[in-house]
Amino acid sequence: MPKKAKVGVVGYGIIGKRVADAVALQNDMELVGVADIISDYRLRVAVEKKYDIYCSVDDFRPMMEREGYEIKGNFPDFLSECDIVVDCTPAGVPAKNKIFYEIKGEGGIPYIVQGGENHILTGLSFSTLGNYAEAIGAKAARVVSCNTTGLTRALSPLVRDFGIGDAFVALCRRSADPSRTNRGPINGAVPVLGISHHGPDVETVVHALKGKIHSLAIAVSMTLSHVHMVRVKLEDQVTAEEVIDTWRRTPRVLVDSGRRGFYDTAQIVEYFRDLGRPRYDRPELFIWEETVHVDGERNLSFISDVHMESIAIPENVDCIRAMLKMELDPFKCMEKTDAAMGIKRNSECYNIKERQRKTSKSPEKATAES
Amino acid sequence: MPKKAKVGVVGYGIIGKRVADAVALQNDMELVGVADIISDYRLRVAVEKKYDIYCSVDDFRPMMEREGYEIKGNFPDFLSECDIVVDCTPAGVPAKNKIFYEIKGEGGIPYIVQGGENHILTGLSFSTLGNYAEAIGAKAARVVSCNTTGLTRALSPLVRDFGIGDAFVALCRRSADPSRTNRGPINGAVPVLGISHHGPDVETVVHALKGKIHSLAIAVSMTLSHVHMVRVKLEDQVTAEEVIDTWRRTPRVLVDSGRRGFYDTAQIVEYFRDLGRPRYDRPELFIWEETVHVDGERNLSFISDVHMESIAIPENVDCIRAMLKMELDPFKCMEKTDAAMGIKRNSECYNIKERQRKTSKSPEKATAES
Amino acid sequence: MPKKAKVGVVGYGIIGKRVADAVALQNDMELVGVADIISDYRLRVAVEKKYDIYCSVDDFRPMMEREGYEIKGNFPDFLSECDIVVDCTPAGVPAKNKIFYEIKGEGGIPYIVQGGENHILTGLSFSTLGNYAEAIGAKAARVVSCNTTGLTRALSPLVRDFGIGDAFVALCRRSADPSRTNRGPINGAVPVLGISHHGPDVETVVHALKGKIHSLAIAVSMTLSHVHMVRVKLEDQVTAEEVIDTWRRTPRVLVDSGRRGFYDTAQIVEYFRDLGRPRYDRPELFIWEETVHVDGERNLSFISDVHMESIAIPENVDCIRAMLKMELDPFKCMEKTDAAMGIKRNSECYNIKERQRKTSKSPEKATAES
Amino acid sequence: MPKKAKVGVVGYGIIGKRVADAVALQNDMELVGVADIISDYRLRVAVEKKYDIYCSVDDFRPMMEREGYEIKGNFPDFLSECDIVVDCTPAGVPAKNKIFYEIKGEGGIPYIVQGGENHILTGLSFSTLGNYAEAIGAKAARVVSCNTTGLTRALSPLVRDFGIGDAFVALCRRSADPSRTNRGPINGAVPVLGISHHGPDVETVVHALKGKIHSLAIAVSMTLSHVHMVRVKLEDQVTAEEVIDTWRRTPRVLVDSGRRGFYDTAQIVEYFRDLGRPRYDRPELFIWEETVHVDGERNLSFISDVHMESIAIPENVDCIRAMLKMELDPFKCMEKTDAAMGIKRNSECYNIKERQRKTSKSPEKATAES
Repeated sequence: MPKKAKVGVVGYGIIGKRVADAVALQNDMELVGVADIISDYRLRVAVEKKYDIYCSVDDFRPMMEREGYEIKGNFPDFLSECDIVVDCTPAGVPAKNKIFYEIKGEGGIPYIVQGGENHILTGLSFSTLGNYAEAIGAKAARVVSCNTTGLTRALSPLVRDFGIGDAFVALCRRSADPSRTNRGPINGAVPVLGISHHGPDVETVVHALKGKIHSLAIAVSMTLSHVHMVRVKLEDQVTAEEVIDTWRRTPRVLVDSGRRGFYDTAQIVEYFRDLGRPRYDRPELFIWEETVHVDGERNLSFISDVHMESIAIPENVDCIRAMLKMELDPFKCMEKTDAAMGIKRNSECYNIKERQRKTSKSPEKATAES
Repeated sequence: MPKKAKVGVVGYGIIGKRVADAVALQNDMELVGVADIISDYRLRVAVEKKYDIYCSVDDFRPMMEREGYEIKGNFPDFLSECDIVVDCTPAGVPAKNKIFYEIKGEGGIPYIVQGGENHILTGLSFSTLGNYAEAIGAKAARVVSCNTTGLTRALSPLVRDFGIGDAFVALCRRSADPSRTNRGPINGAVPVLGISHHGPDVETVVHALKGKIHSLAIAVSMTLSHVHMVRVKLEDQVTAEEVIDTWRRTPRVLVDSGRRGFYDTAQIVEYFRDLGRPRYDRPELFIWEETVHVDGERNLSFISDVHMESIAIPENVDCIRAMLKMELDPFKCMEKTDAAMGIKRNSECYNIKERQRKTSKSPEKATAES
Repeated sequence: MPKKAKVGVVGYGIIGKRVADAVALQNDMELVGVADIISDYRLRVAVEKKYDIYCSVDDFRPMMEREGYEIKGNFPDFLSECDIVVDCTPAGVPAKNKIFYEIKGEGGIPYIVQGGENHILTGLSFSTLGNYAEAIGAKAARVVSCNTTGLTRALSPLVRDFGIGDAFVALCRRSADPSRTNRGPINGAVPVLGISHHGPDVETVVHALKGKIHSLAIAVSMTLSHVHMVRVKLEDQVTAEEVIDTWRRTPRVLVDSGRRGFYDTAQIVEYFRDLGRPRYDRPELFIWEETVHVDGERNLSFISDVHMESIAIPENVDCIRAMLKMELDPFKCMEKTDAAMGIKRNSECYNIKERQRKTSKSPEKATAES
Repeated sequence: MPKKAKVGVVGYGIIGKRVADAVALQNDMELVGVADIISDYRLRVAVEKKYDIYCSVDDFRPMMEREGYEIKGNFPDFLSECDIVVDCTPAGVPAKNKIFYEIKGEGGIPYIVQGGENHILTGLSFSTLGNYAEAIGAKAARVVSCNTTGLTRALSPLVRDFGIGDAFVALCRRSADPSRTNRGPINGAVPVLGISHHGPDVETVVHALKGKIHSLAIAVSMTLSHVHMVRVKLEDQVTAEEVIDTWRRTPRVLVDSGRRGFYDTAQIVEYFRDLGRPRYDRPELFIWEETVHVDGERNLSFISDVHMESIAIPENVDCIRAMLKMELDPFKCMEKTDAAMGIKRNSECYNIKERQRKTSKSPEKATAES
């Protein structure tokens, strides 16, 4: 295991640019650089951040150089520098890149792909709270999608504390990321015709389920987040307060309320904009306290908010540590990742008085998120 | 009981204008007129349709007359002409109007209110497939809301044919009717914080449920329809095909598919626009065939589309007949209502070849819906 | 010239289905049928309307027949029946179809293409109020686009009555037709980078302009209409009232006001929904009275609403009459077209009292537009 | 004049929270605190940022304290600490607060209000590039609105370099800020009926105009920014390149292009999200290079993007310096403000090669904007 893991990011898009930033923030990792073929403003940002830029397909190098970008090397050069790569290219491309990773050096380079790929591409799907141990020492893994990550965060602690049977998830999906202006619908809703893959995908990383997870999905005209309306059959008859308490103790899960101003998805965004979070990212799963309900038949229901652009980023960082055997305990791993990324825990949000007292006025940090 | 029931519509808004049109189309009813206080383009339409206009609050009469509208009479004049009134005024107003209906003539005038009112206002909630018999001879009734009407149409035949236990409904609501441009959200989703009333409201009209109906709801940026993602525990283990077959035989329910072009809510709208339906209204509940699924544990799931502006209009017409004892059989009543309004049955949509043969070319009907 | 012109419509999409309906309504025309390759719900509507269906590309015939559609004939069969065709296929296709029209019979079949095509395809662009005379007897013509049609309606009468110099048009475009749910943007605006073609295109049909028409355009998240914000240098110093008066006397132009309830584009849609217009079509150009302003330097400004799906449909009908020499006078032609289609003039909208008196109560027409 | 100006912010909303952050970043200013009546998540952010919190209306203090917030003092306490206040309360409230500012201490406290107020409230409207000198030593000023600020930035340098006559602005407005989910329209456009105030308002701060500025406006379904489509009559016949060159040398104006990826408003947002700008704020006026056009008649046209939430924030900071006579030169003032806030100049964006070379790899700054 290297002193600092040398991590390369392939594909500097929605996910890739966030993985690059998250890796650069970790004490035990070093970002080798980013490999892509683009030459527009997105790459200008990489320059501002002082990331080394590699060209992943030689044909595009002249165009990149014409725009003024200095290219550190080609794809083989890039791979030579990496202990591990995180492939964040568009769906389908990692299946083609795979061979490059597997033939490189002795035994290949470990690689991570994203949730848009098929489970069979790597044979191992990963989500920290679901199956961290399975990824320890693995040569390839798929970090599950944003929706599956969100569900795994919500359901894993319930499986552990109370046991769950069948679950049903109705997903109301954002139709386009904020920067994808060519996608609709503008007015209306587009159902997934057939069974949505989101529920069953949870079963690839959470193995102790007693029942099945069924899901239905529609895409609507919004860009901020996916919203999940969930119904779960619990094994134990517990109260909503007990469920909330479990979530409050779970990393990367925030339970907060309309009473405190979070009456819609836009307010969650506004909160993280105000905190100065880069890109208003909120990898925390958000659950509305008022919607958590358990009836007398052990049926739990709740509504949650999933930031599709950022929720799986910390899991990518965790996965690197697991695969390179840098940390064997998932909770210690999450603690490192989250501290570096500034991810919030519920306790940080609630004890307002304590926080206000504790902090001496330090003007140089005035606009940064503490 | 009169030869033709003389029906008055109070409130010429989203619902009221549709009830007026539907009543005017029935052979056994006569529209007395519409009572309102508005004086803009909406009333101009009433003139085009030759509806008599009454002023429901005297203060507004000068304004209406200044715009050129001839007022047939005031609110007491209006009520004197009516055998029954359908009150479609904004939520809360019917509670104030109630006294006028109850003191009029001997024993008062029967009246109908809409689903925005509380059940207790009339003590009787109504939906044709749920509890037609209960409204026969009633003096006051509340036609349940659009969401409840849609759920009643989908669940009632299942209760009858297979029995159902618990149900869970995730509603993705249009946030504003198409003409309500002052309402958002523009981007984002607004959850109902707490338990949504939509599920429990079904229990006011469908009494043979074995379990409870729980619902969660969010409002999103769309104006065309509400979308329901539903999970139901059936008593019998049946197939999706059997469920679909039941729905196909149910009035005012269409099961159709993405394969035939209905891949989103906008295509449903486009279909009814093309058919020449006034206001592209589609009182038919629409269920996407590809989403209907039954697992081995008798869990049925499906996605449906509810046109909030028009779905409960035929139930209003039915309710008039029940209250005035004009028709005792709900299915005969629905047949009359639907024939007059041109509401489609599945059989009309499917046998394309037969329909094409049967119809001789009659150019004078070229743009009308058959 | 035939007794009734036999008109064929190629492409049964957004424009084609409307041209078919409009042709079927004219006393001096006969709709031969529609030629297309689709087999989904859209064709089901053609069956309901009893239109003969032709298959325009043989490869698609089996699929159409499998869905139950009876095909009257192939593309050559279709063309043999037509005196003239209106080609409403997607942009670029008419350039390929052209040869079929030109080689058919003796001297070819006259044909009309839509505004998405290049002016050079036919060498003649057409808009009734701009250059009706130029199309008389023509073998091919292009009916200009929705935006150009709207501008021609607004500017032509000003050119005639007052003369105009330079004009500037800022177009705020709907990004997708209501049924095009795959197009965005969901949140945000997409500028036309470079000079928009909309202004200059007016010059292909309005020849008496003294200056140039420059335009800028952005596409935004809406589906109902295009909105034009226009600035025109008049030759004469006239008042806003004089300009409005000119428009009020112009066919297919409505000037109405927020004071009467038309405070946004959605209210215009609602008005035509209420009137029972098929597909809520409003081929009338709508100008907001309150926005019409003329300053002391002869600068006229105003805001107008253009229904992109339907505004150019009557011009297509007019163009048929001009090309087949069925009517030599543009105003007589428009009168025929508009009467058959039920297009409104301002006078019909304003004299409410008169209209209310004139109309005796005739219940059989209760829901139809008079 | 104090060593560090002690600045108080009244109203911690959309504008107020940004002014507070901007003030806290200036070397020559000290943020006294924020005064408001809210107690939800927005105030939690103030705690995170270590801002002192004052209660501006005593009735709300118990509610604020119940939520755990420590209140530093009431409104008079707050004012006693301030050399100047920036009032960012909702439109209409500053007119009521004014008296408190004017009676405080000897001669009152200088105060700044925002563009939503009437010009007459202070008698002095302010925008740095327009009329910095007029605010020097003033007791009260109104920083003009976002739209006026954007227009002033674009037009002032043209007035100075080339002279301008009449101008016409078509504004396509965002209808709601991102956090205002209760406002529409969802689908459609709402015109300003009558003359929009945006154009004439420019004349309150730019005095050397030869002609008038007329504007029309519509509000549409978007939350990211206002878009301006502008037409200006120049006094000199210059080229588009000369105009662009003038803007490139103007502070707080960026001219960039679709060719570099900025093909819509969402890409501009994405760029600043990627750069890590708090709240993706972009006080820079953005002009699309491809849309800048000058014809042979000295008509300039262009499209620009105005971030309504943040564009006037630096002008508020400048206004403080002018009123307190901390800096007499507008360009030196802007340099201080912009350096502290990290506002970009064109030169920083373009010389990519140079920037890439200049920066040595410093991992600790990896995710911060340089």
